[in-house]
Order: sequence, then structure tokens, then C-alpha cells
Amino acid sequence: MKDYSRESLKLHEKLKGKISVELTTELNTKEDMTLCYSPGVAEPCMQIANDPEKAWSLTSKGNLVAIVTDGSSVLGLGNIGPAAAMPVMEGKAMLFKRFGEVNAFPICLDTQDTEEIIRIVRLLSPTFGGVNLEDISSPRCFEIEERLQDIGIPVFHDDQHGTAIVTLAGLINACKLVGKEMKDLRVVINGAGAAGVAIANLLNGKDLGDDVFTPVKEIIICDTKGIIHKERRDLTNLKKSLLTFTNPNNLKGTVKDAVVGADVFVGVSVENVLHKADVMAMAKDPIIFAMANPNPEINPDEAYEGGAAVVGTGRSDLPNQVNNVLAFPGIFKGALACRASRITPRMKLAAAYAIAAEVGEINRDNIIPSSLNMKVADGVAEAVKEAWKQELEIEKMLDEVSDRL
Amino acid sequence: MKDYSRESLKLHEKLKGKISVELTTELNTKEDMTLCYSPGVAEPCMQIANDPEKAWSLTSKGNLVAIVTDGSSVLGLGNIGPAAAMPVMEGKAMLFKRFGEVNAFPICLDTQDTEEIIRIVRLLSPTFGGVNLEDISSPRCFEIEERLQDIGIPVFHDDQHGTAIVTLAGLINACKLVGKEMKDLRVVINGAGAAGVAIANLLNGKDLGDDVFTPVKEIIICDTKGIIHKERRDLTNLKKSLLTFTNPNNLKGTVKDAVVGADVFVGVSVENVLHKADVMAMAKDPIIFAMANPNPEINPDEAYEGGAAVVGTGRSDLPNQVNNVLAFPGIFKGALACRASRITPRMKLAAAYAIAAEVGEINRDNIIPSSLNMKVADGVAEAVKEAWKQELEIEKMLDEVSDRL
Repeated sequence: MKDYSRESLKLHEKLKGKISVELTTELNTKEDMTLCYSPGVAEPCMQIANDPEKAWSLTSKGNLVAIVTDGSSVLGLGNIGPAAAMPVMEGKAMLFKRFGEVNAFPICLDTQDTEEIIRIVRLLSPTFGGVNLEDISSPRCFEIEERLQDIGIPVFHDDQHGTAIVTLAGLINACKLVGKEMKDLRVVINGAGAAGVAIANLLNGKDLGDDVFTPVKEIIICDTKGIIHKERRDLTNLKKSLLTFTNPNNLKGTVKDAVVGADVFVGVSVENVLHKADVMAMAKDPIIFAMANPNPEINPDEAYEGGAAVVGTGRSDLPNQVNNVLAFPGIFKGALACRASRITPRMKLAAAYAIAAEVGEINRDNIIPSSLNMKVADGVAEAVKEAWKQELEIEKMLDEVSDRL
Repeated sequence: MKDYSRESLKLHEKLKGKISVELTTELNTKEDMTLCYSPGVAEPCMQIANDPEKAWSLTSKGNLVAIVTDGSSVLGLGNIGPAAAMPVMEGKAMLFKRFGEVNAFPICLDTQDTEEIIRIVRLLSPTFGGVNLEDISSPRCFEIEERLQDIGIPVFHDDQHGTAIVTLAGLINACKLVGKEMKDLRVVINGAGAAGVAIANLLNGKDLGDDVFTPVKEIIICDTKGIIHKERRDLTNLKKSLLTFTNPNNLKGTVKDAVVGADVFVGVSVENVLHKADVMAMAKDPIIFAMANPNPEINPDEAYEGGAAVVGTGRSDLPNQVNNVLAFPGIFKGALACRASRITPRMKLAAAYAIAAEVGEINRDNIIPSSLNMKVADGVAEAVKEAWKQELEIEKMLDEVSDRL
């Protein structure tokens, strides 16, 4: 693959910032100044002071997302800190605007203290309509996201759910391609970090009824020490909690043991952990998502030689790229449009199906839409809005039931 | 004056946000994605990780200001909170861009705790090249600004210094008009809040040598209880500290007593506190800055009837508007361009003289440039850069002297 380092650096030196803050109206005359600023601006201020909901219609808030990072886990570069994370956050803001028409702004925080990050995001919430957490290391990312679910605006950790949603979208189409059903799948996930855990949760249909989503038959998660099973004494509480819905037969061993007879391999780990012989040991028509960056867990050619039916990776120069940009712009676009206060599992699932639906004719090289497909975000936004509507209806029904009891 | 409330509200409803976040380059192809985002973006990230200074040339930081408020003292509306402050902050961001070509972004914080605000601004600093504190109530604004002077980027409370700088600019030209010298002036400041204190400090040339700025002869500050003097028992520590350089003759009484024989009245208080008779009691050719908003301390017509030589107000529909927009866009433009770590008194003074210089022919209705004058910000920026250069030279000289001792 071509090395883009030099060219990217030159572009960044030239631009001195990939985003800018612009006016949405002219400011040329005294009257413009009076209407946009003092004294005219006092009226919208007072309207919001009297009814905080009006911030959504009178300010940028209604279409504005904070991209919050502490720089603790940036791309594959690790803990490079908040200043060095800025180019990624600016890039993310570009994608938000380009694909979702959502204004997004980087907030790179000079702290990696969980409590402090939670507190700051809470205190920043008047300005924004949503928060996209980004490149925050595991396991802190889980607690930070979890504890911010009550702030009244959607808080979404993209490294978890973006990857999970697009992986599920790919899996939906891969199942169609090979003629298998989701409920019959045995899935091995290699990697128990942010993305691995989120994929497991989504494939398990966590918090959703069976009428909405039938979980896959069996999920096995591996970390760097191998399969996560009941007898391991080195498990964090988070990993222990994964055992409530994974590895039902308490399988032990390495990832190579795990994949024997499996239908799906999902790699969110490091390069070169899977080989042709492993793919040959999987069930018929194996489905491979080898998403390690920049080099996948197994080269697609090698996977196909081993009998893979379809292979997805994280690379833009290969078919079936699992790219979060298919998810987050549409998810926030939809969530902001309907003023959702959270991004629920139902909305994530709806987003995955909407992404899957945009792929057109399914074949080995086409189970995931191109990351440049401009139609995806709108499809996702509509699906997310519909799912939120359902959430509100269910909430209302439950309220009525509890009133009657 | 025309009531712009309705029209302003309609405009805000239509715009749904007066600012937006935009891309500075195209994002259409896979190659664009690769250069602006993953994997190309890793290179600028690593460059910054290895040398944090590069954030200034490789990201938006170098031309980006946070407009931070807690909504505790918004316009004349008081403590309306962070959400209701947003329309003002957006308006401010527009002015930053329009006049200074500086990207500025609102940060409305849901806390009015001094320690918390200080901590958050500190932690936000990797993202920004400067911080404009806005509409934070006195006396908290003083401590917040003071304690943030060491974060390595300029932190500037506009409600203090913006007003002070433009007032001084007006005073410089007013002196020329009436043929008085700054050093001979007796100045009465009515209002001991953020603006009043900053004006007093600037007119006193605080922290500057006499070679740079000759302070005015006498400053008297009044608050709502009248003249601030040594025998008052109700003074805060801040107000007590003003006595170190104001009211040398320990004058007592009301503001009406204070103005008798004074050359200059500076009002940063409330409407209708000064009358024709008071102006008549002032020294020859009185200079009046009646900046209460929306209605001045004295109507200019009444002031002129009382013998005023020149009157400035805060109103855009009257001549000689003291408008902060003449100061902050250029100040930050200059400070960011030279990577200044603070805005020093020398830079504020330079800004005031630069504003004064843009006025053209001085007459009663023209001692302060129009707030729409597009040349002012560049003049201010140049002056601020030059002043910072002097600061560095002085610092270097002092270092050399102390090395020799």
C-alpha cells in the first residue's frame, strides 16, 4: 500500500487546520451587527433563559457535536496525548460535515482521569447537541460512556459502536451471501477492547427483545491470552461480565482453537494472528472480518486460499472496508433531528440494517457500501429516527402498564 | 432607537446557529480520505507527539480561540446561564472571524465555580491557541483570568480589557481634540465591575514604566455606594486594592461630588446617573464616555448642553461607539500570529493607540473608528505583535542582567 505519510504531512502544513468556523449569514452593516449581536441578540438569549429547549432552535446546539478525546488511544498510535490527537479529531469533524451535514468540533482534553473527563463533558453539554467520544482507551471508555448516558444528549463512543455497527452490517450481507442465518452463527471475536466488547454486545442483541433481534448462536471472545473462559484467574470485571453471554461451552485454548468449526472470525486485534490452516479449520463458507490496522489479522488472499467465502478488512484499498464513517455521521444526523437523548441498542441495530441495505447487489467484494457512498448517512439517519420513535412508544406503553399496576 | 428584538428572534429561528464548522479542503476521493484521515493522518499526529510546538502549524490550534463563558453576566441580562449565553457567544465568534479572520468557538460551561472553570480552561488548552473569557461576573472574572495567565496561551477577559482598550483609544483622540494631555487628566470612573477596574488599571499604566505610558494625573472610582475611599468599611479586597493608585486626596461623597472639576467622566454603570448640571460642574471641555447599555449614563444631547466637548457611548446608533469589536479580533489575530503566551499591558496599550490611529480626522463625532472599519483589526494586530516583540526583548535583557548579578 502506498505510503501517504509525507503527502499527508505536506497537506497538513499547507492547511494549518482542516476545519474552520464560518458565519452562516452576512455581517456587513450596522443592522447585521445589531441583529446578530448586541442589542438584538438579547431577545433569543431571554427566550432560552425562559425555556432552555429553545436552545435547540435558536442556536447551533441542535446540529452540533463535540468530538471529545483525551488522546489515550489514538488510531494505532497509542497514548500520544490530546495535542497530538487533534489531526484525527479534525479529520473526524470533516467526515461529520461531509457525510452527515453535522457541525462537529474537536475537544482535546489534557486529562486522562475518568472522573474529570465525565465531569467536563457534563459541564460542556449546554453548548452541544451530542457528544462523540473518540480514541479513549479501554476500559476507561466504557465507564465514561456509561455514566454520561443521563446528560440529556446522546453520548456515543465511536471506537466501540461505530465499528460494531458496520461489522454487523457486513455480517448481515455476508449471511445472505453464504445462505446462513444470524441465529445459527458461531462467532469468534479476537480482541476484547472497546470494539471487541461492543461487537459482542451488539451481536448478542443486548437489552433488546428476541422480536427485535435474534442473537447469534454462540460468541467466543479471545484476548491476548486466548479464549476468555470461566477458569481464567486473570480476568478483569469487565471480561468476567462477558462470560454471562459468551462461551457457553466454556471452551479453552488459543484463538486458533476457538476458530475450529466457527462460522465467523471477527478480528479487532493485531496483524498476522490467523492463517490459511485456521480458515480451513472453520465451518463451511467462513466469513472473515480482519480489521487490524494498518495490516489485517490475515491477508484476504490467504483467507480466500483457505476457503473463506467473504473477507472484510479495515483498509480503504481493499473491498468491504469496515469504516466507521458509514455509521456516525448518519447516527448523529438522525439522533439530532429527532432530539434523541441517547443512542440505544435499537438505534444501533437499525443503523446496521440501514447500512447493509445500501450495498446494492451482494457479492464477495460487495457486502459493505463504499465509505464514499453519500446515500448511506441519510438512510442511517432515517432508520435511527424511526428506531427512536419506537423507543418512545415502548417507553409510553411501559409507563401505561406500570400506571395500571 | 428601533426595537430589533422581533427581527433578531426571527433571524435566529431561521439560521438555527450563526456559525458552522466547515472543511478547509475537499474530501471527495479515497485519496482525500487517506490524507485527511486514516491512515495518512498518523504522520502529523506523530510529529506533534514528538514536538508539541508543531500543533501550531499542523492543526487549527494556531488560529483558534475558545470563547468561554459561564453565563453569569450576559450583556445587561445578568446571570441567565450557559445555554442562554450561546447566542452572544456565537455572535462573538462571528465578529472574531469577520474582523480578525480568527476561528473562534463558543464553550458555554454549566458551572459557576471559579476553581472548576479555571481547571476546565486549563484542560481545554491543547485544542486552542487562545482563550477569550466572556460575560463572567465580577469579581470571579478577575481571579479566573489572573490564575490562567500561566497556561502558555493568551487568556483575555474581553469585558474587562476590550472595553478598557477602546475607552483609552477614545480618550487619546479626545485629548487631542480638546488640547489636553493624558498626564494632566482627572478621571472619574463610575462602576467598579470588570470594565471599571480594567479601565482604571490601563489608565494607570499598571506594570508599565513611565517611559511607555504616563498615567493620568488622578483616577477616582465610584461604585453604587459612591466614591471608593479609605474610610469606607464595606470594601472588598479588590476595591481596597484600587486605593493604592486611585483617589490620592481621599475624596468622599457621591459620583456627583466626584465629577466636580474632573476632566473626564467614564461611565460603566447604569442609565441616568449624570445630568446637565454635573457636566457643567466639570473642568473646561469635559470628556464624557457614557457606556451604560442600552441607555447611557447621560444622553449625549444633554451632555453637550452642559458643555461637554465630546461624548462617546456604547450605542451603535450614536457617534463614537465604544465597541469591543475594535479590540479583540485584532488583539487575538496579532497574539496568535506571534505565538504570544499572554496579552500584556504593553500589548493592550499598543492596541489602544492603534485603534486611535485609525480614526482619520478627529472631530466631536469622530474620536473612535466605526465598528465596521475593516482596517482596524490589522492595525491592532501589527501593534500587538510589535509590543510582544518588545516584551521578549525586555525579558531577554532582564535575564542577561540577572545572569550578571
